[in-house]
Amino acid sequence: MGYQEFTIEGRNAVIEAFRSGKPIDKVFILDGCQDGPIMTIKREASKHDTLIKYVSKERLDQMSETGKHQGVIAYAAAYEYAQVEDILDNAKAKGEPPFIFLLDNIEDPHNLGAIIRTANLAGAHGVIIPKNRAAGLTATVARTSAGALNYTPVAKVTNMSQTIEALKKEGLWFVCADMGGTTMYDLDLRGPIGLVIGNEGEGVGRLVKEKCDMIASIPMKGDIDSLNASVAAGVLAYEIVRQRLK
Amino acid sequence: MGYQEFTIEGRNAVIEAFRSGKPIDKVFILDGCQDGPIMTIKREASKHDTLIKYVSKERLDQMSETGKHQGVIAYAAAYEYAQVEDILDNAKAKGEPPFIFLLDNIEDPHNLGAIIRTANLAGAHGVIIPKNRAAGLTATVARTSAGALNYTPVAKVTNMSQTIEALKKEGLWFVCADMGGTTMYDLDLRGPIGLVIGNEGEGVGRLVKEKCDMIASIPMKGDIDSLNASVAAGVLAYEIVRQRLK
Repeated sequence: MGYQEFTIEGRNAVIEAFRSGKPIDKVFILDGCQDGPIMTIKREASKHDTLIKYVSKERLDQMSETGKHQGVIAYAAAYEYAQVEDILDNAKAKGEPPFIFLLDNIEDPHNLGAIIRTANLAGAHGVIIPKNRAAGLTATVARTSAGALNYTPVAKVTNMSQTIEALKKEGLWFVCADMGGTTMYDLDLRGPIGLVIGNEGEGVGRLVKEKCDMIASIPMKGDIDSLNASVAAGVLAYEIVRQRLK
Repeated sequence: MGYQEFTIEGRNAVIEAFRSGKPIDKVFILDGCQDGPIMTIKREASKHDTLIKYVSKERLDQMSETGKHQGVIAYAAAYEYAQVEDILDNAKAKGEPPFIFLLDNIEDPHNLGAIIRTANLAGAHGVIIPKNRAAGLTATVARTSAGALNYTPVAKVTNMSQTIEALKKEGLWFVCADMGGTTMYDLDLRGPIGLVIGNEGEGVGRLVKEKCDMIASIPMKGDIDSLNASVAAGVLAYEIVRQRLK
């Protein structure tokens, strides 16, 4: 496991990196370049929400490690994902009942980074994220995780509901955060637990919610709707920590 | 109280807005413009960390409300700050012991917005921020507060330590978040309380910390140093909520 940043240089290499789904944070393109491959790279970049920066030839030459940038250099992040089994092994090695964060489509990389940071400090054994739609592990996530990405294993799964089913067989209980549930202070959150955090706008998806054993609500006294997703994750995670310490 | 965004058009108006300390979020400048007043605006913008966007004359014409932009339009935010007394009155009107957030130099506007959002939902009666250094109430703060800025009063004070002294005379106790304190679960956080949240990097300043009656620590089980400031504020605020609900 581990997180790294690296550069990809040259038109074909960058196009292939996009098409193979590598998380590319930024593309530097020679200012004024308009030919076919560059237009393809621009299209791929906008499809993947990658930042484009137009720079001078001198700047690209300076950045280049190979000297063969052909007018384009991409910054990519590489993270070797853990397996769900690694997370369970992590708990076993520490002699603790498993405590896992499951993120049901967190989209904002700042939230994802802050939640991985919280997972680390709350003593969770790992974080599970879905393969599609959600934010992946980019440089922004690594930075906002404040180093936690180097310690807390993150696994990527195709089907969150199936993962929950499989983990239930390992003895885990699942709690998701949602309005209209039981106030979190009144739930028993000790023992092997999976904490499910929903999407910033839509909350936890219906299929995933149906798999959860408990729905926890954070008391809301104010005038607005909901806490920021990473704050809500922190508040719930620490209610679990509090109950585990008792 | 209230939050508004508005535009400032024309060179002198924008320069004066900067010099009078108005919080300007963004400046749109006619691409290619290099004369004296525009250079002054660029310098002021970089001094105030204001985003500069270079745009075409057509774009500026579209954005302009006066038709007299002279190549520059600024977006500013205006917020009518509350007084500390308004916050105490807010508590009194609700018949609750005061619960106030004091932010000792939060610098990141996303954190500031998320904390105001948390203050609203945790039922705090207001937020106090310092006049200098810290982030002010910009459009980013308003957006990340998710509307809370329209409900939760925010007061700006010159001297946080003196404000704490004055509020102690009103019967408030002060707790700050810091490492090496008492685990938050073991403190009595009921009654009239001020929750002091420190700067992202440096934590709570020494002078402010000395004024606090209690130092609360969030249990940290992980490998890294600290939670994100807005997550830490949320975790502590909800420990106060839990104790108040009992």
